Amino acid sequence: MQALLDKILRRVVTQGRLKVRFPDGTRAAYGSLPGPDAELELRDPKAARRIALNPNLAFGEAYMDGAIVPVGCDIYDVLDVLVSNLAAGRTHPVLGLHARLGTALRRWAQFNPASRARRNAAHHYDLGDQLYRLLLDPDMQYSCAYFPRGDETLGEAQLAKKRHIAAKLLLRPGLRVLEIGCGWGGLALTLAREHGVRVTGITLSTEQLATARARAAAEGLADQVRFELQDYRTVEGPFDRVVSVAMFEAVGVNHYREFFRTVRRCLTPDGVALVHSIGRSHGPEATNPWLAKYIFPGGYSPALSEVLPAVERSGLIATDIEILRLHYAETLRLWRRNFAANREAIAAMYDERFCLMFEFYLAGCELAFRREGHMVWHMQLAREQAHVPLARDYIADAERQIASLIHAS
Amino acid sequence: MQALLDKILRRVVTQGRLKVRFPDGTRAAYGSLPGPDAELELRDPKAARRIALNPNLAFGEAYMDGAIVPVGCDIYDVLDVLVSNLAAGRTHPVLGLHARLGTALRRWAQFNPASRARRNAAHHYDLGDQLYRLLLDPDMQYSCAYFPRGDETLGEAQLAKKRHIAAKLLLRPGLRVLEIGCGWGGLALTLAREHGVRVTGITLSTEQLATARARAAAEGLADQVRFELQDYRTVEGPFDRVVSVAMFEAVGVNHYREFFRTVRRCLTPDGVALVHSIGRSHGPEATNPWLAKYIFPGGYSPALSEVLPAVERSGLIATDIEILRLHYAETLRLWRRNFAANREAIAAMYDERFCLMFEFYLAGCELAFRREGHMVWHMQLAREQAHVPLARDYIADAERQIASLIHAS
Repeated sequence: MQALLDKILRRVVTQGRLKVRFPDGTRAAYGSLPGPDAELELRDPKAARRIALNPNLAFGEAYMDGAIVPVGCDIYDVLDVLVSNLAAGRTHPVLGLHARLGTALRRWAQFNPASRARRNAAHHYDLGDQLYRLLLDPDMQYSCAYFPRGDETLGEAQLAKKRHIAAKLLLRPGLRVLEIGCGWGGLALTLAREHGVRVTGITLSTEQLATARARAAAEGLADQVRFELQDYRTVEGPFDRVVSVAMFEAVGVNHYREFFRTVRRCLTPDGVALVHSIGRSHGPEATNPWLAKYIFPGGYSPALSEVLPAVERSGLIATDIEILRLHYAETLRLWRRNFAANREAIAAMYDERFCLMFEFYLAGCELAFRREGHMVWHMQLAREQAHVPLARDYIADAERQIASLIHAS
Repeated sequence: MQALLDKILRRVVTQGRLKVRFPDGTRAAYGSLPGPDAELELRDPKAARRIALNPNLAFGEAYMDGAIVPVGCDIYDVLDVLVSNLAAGRTHPVLGLHARLGTALRRWAQFNPASRARRNAAHHYDLGDQLYRLLLDPDMQYSCAYFPRGDETLGEAQLAKKRHIAAKLLLRPGLRVLEIGCGWGGLALTLAREHGVRVTGITLSTEQLATARARAAAEGLADQVRFELQDYRTVEGPFDRVVSVAMFEAVGVNHYREFFRTVRRCLTPDGVALVHSIGRSHGPEATNPWLAKYIFPGGYSPALSEVLPAVERSGLIATDIEILRLHYAETLRLWRRNFAANREAIAAMYDERFCLMFEFYLAGCELAFRREGHMVWHMQLAREQAHVPLARDYIADAERQIASLIHAS
């Protein structure tokens, strides 16, 4: 099987250089064109076999098991060589087969009734707030930040993201806002604090719920912001605004119509909604099987061509679609830096295998955004077309206004 | 057949009020809820029969033939009552049948090989420049204008549109720009004049070509702007920028992949493209058969869900999607006003039936944008994601900059 793995690597890696030390002591180097550079040691012949047969799943598992060890570099560098070549169109029949099978089966993998949706959420979001406190910005925004200048700190970029979303929601004091997937409450509390709106935030994670409620109480915003453990399908409106950030990835292709119909049902006729989600630029494909198994069961990053049919049939009008490129690559880079700085504390709370898993996850996702056309889309929606200004300039105007208001106070 | 027509109107019209004088002298009134108000005289019993059997085609034909005459109002008011009710979901099995059939057959109706594409273009765009000079702004922009303030004149709004597009194209002096569907050359000349780019504009209309070339010569821009009678499928690159305004409507659903592959093929790796087209917000539907027969043979206003699969498979990345609502309603209102002001001159050049046809076209289209969720989408595209700024603020910045530069000079 070492021979098959060698064949795959020879086929895939042409850009950059990947040096490999095989379990039997032999060494090989792949690639000669300009590109990133890395070296790894493969310590277990069984891992070599598994990788050759199912690289998308087994490579990450081998790293978690310590069977793959980067030499003089880290897992990001190793993945960079592989991802750069795959993004440039290099492939091997083994990879092509898995990709086609995964795409074909993605609807099955994303069947997310309420009970499974809850288990899926718990899998990742109930890992313990302590972990996320070490990983994220102080407001615990676990989604793509927004870097309009490009050199913002993580905290600045997350605040810019919240204000970018607020601007698109056309907020006024007293409006009723529904947040589908409220995380640890940071966005809901920011909207309430900066715009005087009343927010109902829902989540399927009990740990997020407890933290969000405690934060609302501590800020004295508990009468303005309400958090509930609830599935989006059971929400009753009316709301003037609906916002959903980084939750749509957990909805599943089969449930998109249900999702947008729920948004429409909950909105007043003059209502406006904003959905923020990861997406892929090059059409439908399956979720990476390692990511689906270890990090986001039931999760999916859709192509816009998969989302729009559901929007168009929901009775909602898409009034703006922003495509945020590279912002998530930068966000993940900063999370990865936080993780590295706190690795000892995290390893003490969890274990070494968990740390390897998390590093693989952060590095792989960063590269998907940097090299493979993954992006974040913002879709603004309305029931009637007249309730959003004619030109998009109001977004930047509102951002400037809130920044100067808060700065002045 | 008057009885069937009466039944259809009774079923469809509930909002507003439509009074009808039938050929046999009887009168009827439809609708009682608040809404627009109009009255018409139906002068020909055969027209009543044709309208009952195929309303979407025959209503416009009856108006062209003088068999339908608005009473104390104009055709816009009559259509407003009908369209407002249809947009609110009122329908009749006769209408539903035609709609479903039309949607199913739309790929056939839009089979546009080069030869037919040329005939289709000639049908409408070779009507005589004199007509379009009386209808349009002085720069002869025959596409949706942009009203960021909302109260611009037609000329101001068309200039704002050109500069909005220029900003999204990230222009620098010397860049090579391809314009697919150049009309009478207004955009190409503006880009060359204001940004120092070199433009190749292609059209399938011989009359547009002649006018565009004459304008380039008259402005002394003939060495910087080249116009050709050419099908987009035969263009050879490379170009740094590709722009296409209000031509995509003539491409046809079957040819979207061909279109976006052509754009990609013509672009340099760091290239950027901007496609401006009419679209519909509520999913695929057939082109109105009257519009397809008399105004835009082979034409289609696509849902974004029909466009994005072709984009995603082309190797291009959609980097921004703006949805311009109501701007075309306002543009058409101003064209309609110009038409009315010059009606006598136009009737002298063509004939009364032509004037009725054109009025029906302008009124029907305005209402489609005002009431039925038709819109204009701007899709910015790039081959690589790093060649468009991270945040969209550069668009408004560039618009401000060019306005102050031109104002100062």
